[in-house]
Amino acid sequence: MNISLADQQLILELLDVMSATKLQECRQHISAQLDGVVDFWLRHSHDAEYGGFFTCIGRDGKVYDDLKYVWLQGRQVWMYCRLYRTLERFHRPEILEAAKAGAAFLRKFARMSSSSSPWKCAFCLTRDGKAVKVQRSIFSECFYIMAMDELSRVIADQDMQLEAEQMMEQLIYWVQVDPSGLGRPRLPGDVATNSMAVPMMLLCLVRQLTEGRDHEAAQKYRELGSWCVAQILQHVQRAGTAILENVSESGAELPGSAGRLQNPGHALEAGWFLLQFSAETGDKEIQKTAIEKFIELPLEYGWDREHGGLFYFLDVDGHCPTQLEWNMKPWWPHCEALIALLMAYSQTKRPELLQRFLQVYDYSFSHFPDEKNGEWVGYLSREGSTVLDFKGGPFKGFFHVPRCLLMCERLLDDLLQMHDE
Amino acid sequence: MNISLADQQLILELLDVMSATKLQECRQHISAQLDGVVDFWLRHSHDAEYGGFFTCIGRDGKVYDDLKYVWLQGRQVWMYCRLYRTLERFHRPEILEAAKAGAAFLRKFARMSSSSSPWKCAFCLTRDGKAVKVQRSIFSECFYIMAMDELSRVIADQDMQLEAEQMMEQLIYWVQVDPSGLGRPRLPGDVATNSMAVPMMLLCLVRQLTEGRDHEAAQKYRELGSWCVAQILQHVQRAGTAILENVSESGAELPGSAGRLQNPGHALEAGWFLLQFSAETGDKEIQKTAIEKFIELPLEYGWDREHGGLFYFLDVDGHCPTQLEWNMKPWWPHCEALIALLMAYSQTKRPELLQRFLQVYDYSFSHFPDEKNGEWVGYLSREGSTVLDFKGGPFKGFFHVPRCLLMCERLLDDLLQMHDE
Repeated sequence: MNISLADQQLILELLDVMSATKLQECRQHISAQLDGVVDFWLRHSHDAEYGGFFTCIGRDGKVYDDLKYVWLQGRQVWMYCRLYRTLERFHRPEILEAAKAGAAFLRKFARMSSSSSPWKCAFCLTRDGKAVKVQRSIFSECFYIMAMDELSRVIADQDMQLEAEQMMEQLIYWVQVDPSGLGRPRLPGDVATNSMAVPMMLLCLVRQLTEGRDHEAAQKYRELGSWCVAQILQHVQRAGTAILENVSESGAELPGSAGRLQNPGHALEAGWFLLQFSAETGDKEIQKTAIEKFIELPLEYGWDREHGGLFYFLDVDGHCPTQLEWNMKPWWPHCEALIALLMAYSQTKRPELLQRFLQVYDYSFSHFPDEKNGEWVGYLSREGSTVLDFKGGPFKGFFHVPRCLLMCERLLDDLLQMHDE
Repeated sequence: MNISLADQQLILELLDVMSATKLQECRQHISAQLDGVVDFWLRHSHDAEYGGFFTCIGRDGKVYDDLKYVWLQGRQVWMYCRLYRTLERFHRPEILEAAKAGAAFLRKFARMSSSSSPWKCAFCLTRDGKAVKVQRSIFSECFYIMAMDELSRVIADQDMQLEAEQMMEQLIYWVQVDPSGLGRPRLPGDVATNSMAVPMMLLCLVRQLTEGRDHEAAQKYRELGSWCVAQILQHVQRAGTAILENVSESGAELPGSAGRLQNPGHALEAGWFLLQFSAETGDKEIQKTAIEKFIELPLEYGWDREHGGLFYFLDVDGHCPTQLEWNMKPWWPHCEALIALLMAYSQTKRPELLQRFLQVYDYSFSHFPDEKNGEWVGYLSREGSTVLDFKGGPFKGFFHVPRCLLMCERLLDDLLQMHDE
């Protein structure tokens, strides 16, 4: 059958209208979801008595543990400020007040007086701010920096911005010069490793600290940004057929289960970080690698063809991972996939990326949201049933879901606006 | 309907014959399983080149990671020696040689030169014995002690026995006097906790170091044994209706998820440790508590009425535990339940305990053994399908399965012999 050029044009236009209708529908749904999720945390997570946020929140919104996880305190401050600053309908005093109260709690309690560095933060605090646990890694500090920098933008507080930058200097020192201040003993068999989380987080912070700021700020972190990108790209392994979570410091594959570990959600998140970087720098090569290697590839090997959804962990050689949760379907990789696919589509307009977005969208919105009580559940079985029914826990707070919904709403607005023009 | 006394007697005798037949069948099956499991590890786990044991062993017996976990090295040495020493058919030179090679590897590499204490052991070693990770707890050292003491019994090596006792002194100091040598910073919000694992392990070591030894040795550890029992009994909470995994040092319930945590397998293991203690001391009160609170009660709340099998973790108030693996069915609680129930039955002859044993037996033997490749899988989904298919991993080695099979075989032999007499 021959299709005339005119007919082909017609079909393309029809498809275009169809996808615009579908995208309009997605946009409405995502926007309503975002309202509901923000409302959930405003209602259930604020500790009026001691400050800060409860983060262990059950299915129905009730607090089941009053421990305060520092990652999640910092993330919630950041998220409130980002919503307040970038979406008109969240530019509400109660949201700003909540962010300020959270930041005050963090500034008062997160940093550990017992550490050799004035910048080391605890991982977990009691309700009234006493340190319970400390991790020998940089992530509590990363989310502290994100919180302070984002809030400093909203309230134009230069001291706060300076605090974020000073802590950032300490992080860079721990990562690039000497990690001994983190408290982990250096053991002879413990090979120095490039774990994807570290350059990813630093790249995220570089963007946080420089976005929209003057040339000097951008200049200050330019080299670090490029270093992070190079470190992330080292995780493309096996002749470009796999993203591995841990590689050696020189970018070689590591032996054993740790070396073969794949974390599709992390690769997808790195994918959109790289897309943002390529958009800023105009580096088309990075854009291509981000889409092919960090977005399409992990979706290919990370997607469960039998039951749908993204696996938590995989072993590149098909061995069984040693993580007991390997075959679960956690919420956050789906959030990262939605952002990554929509951003990649918006930059390239390649229809197969939109197709993939809609596939992840369908799985995510039919499995994670709790229509009755609000918010999303976080951890499904391989088959897609809810295994852990809480809305907030030690690693799930007010972050991945609203960040995804916010970013997707804005990306969809831009796409639909382009369509209308 | 009235049943005459004579008829009642007949029915009881009939039931007795039936259960003897069933127990005979169990005994045969358990004995064959033990042979297969020992054979699996003899064939697949020995590192002829560097010494010690591979512990990451895939479904088919192939090594998928050459890291050597110290808990599992110690446990395997102990298990080989215990088999060699107590069952005639395992009194084989190859088994003794393997135990000696494992102990030599441990003595050469497990203790960390970089620690402030000469007794601190690593958690994980490279194939050639370099420390990769260290835990800020006492368990590597516990299994080192078990290995050395058990081997010293087989080869009558007093130096080795002394080494075990010296390390034991260090452990007691860490637990009862000052834990700072373990390297965990004492944080203001970190309440001192009585975690069930600690007194359980120490009680196990007290038995290991004293069993069959002279009065002086027994005397030396008597007080510690009683202290361990008292610490374990503190975990009976909520007016005797629950065993909680973590309580305060004074035996009060702790707040939050950690305070409400239940680990049915651990309670069951503590149950048979207490039964052994009560048998030694003749303390009938402890026997009663062990059976009612540590064996029957956790089986009641820990057993999944829908799909069978014992849950990994539960929350006493029915909240969702924060452990992602909470609803999995791990192999080891089933091993501990089999030992606990058979020991309790053998001490009391209460038929409902035998009934329960057979229930756990049916679930365990129809789910965990891999008839094709040998050994047991370790981690099932709630519904009972295999989620992690390896035979050995970071926490699964040559220990729970063969210890259970060995102890059940011996308990059954004693029961069946009694029956024949």
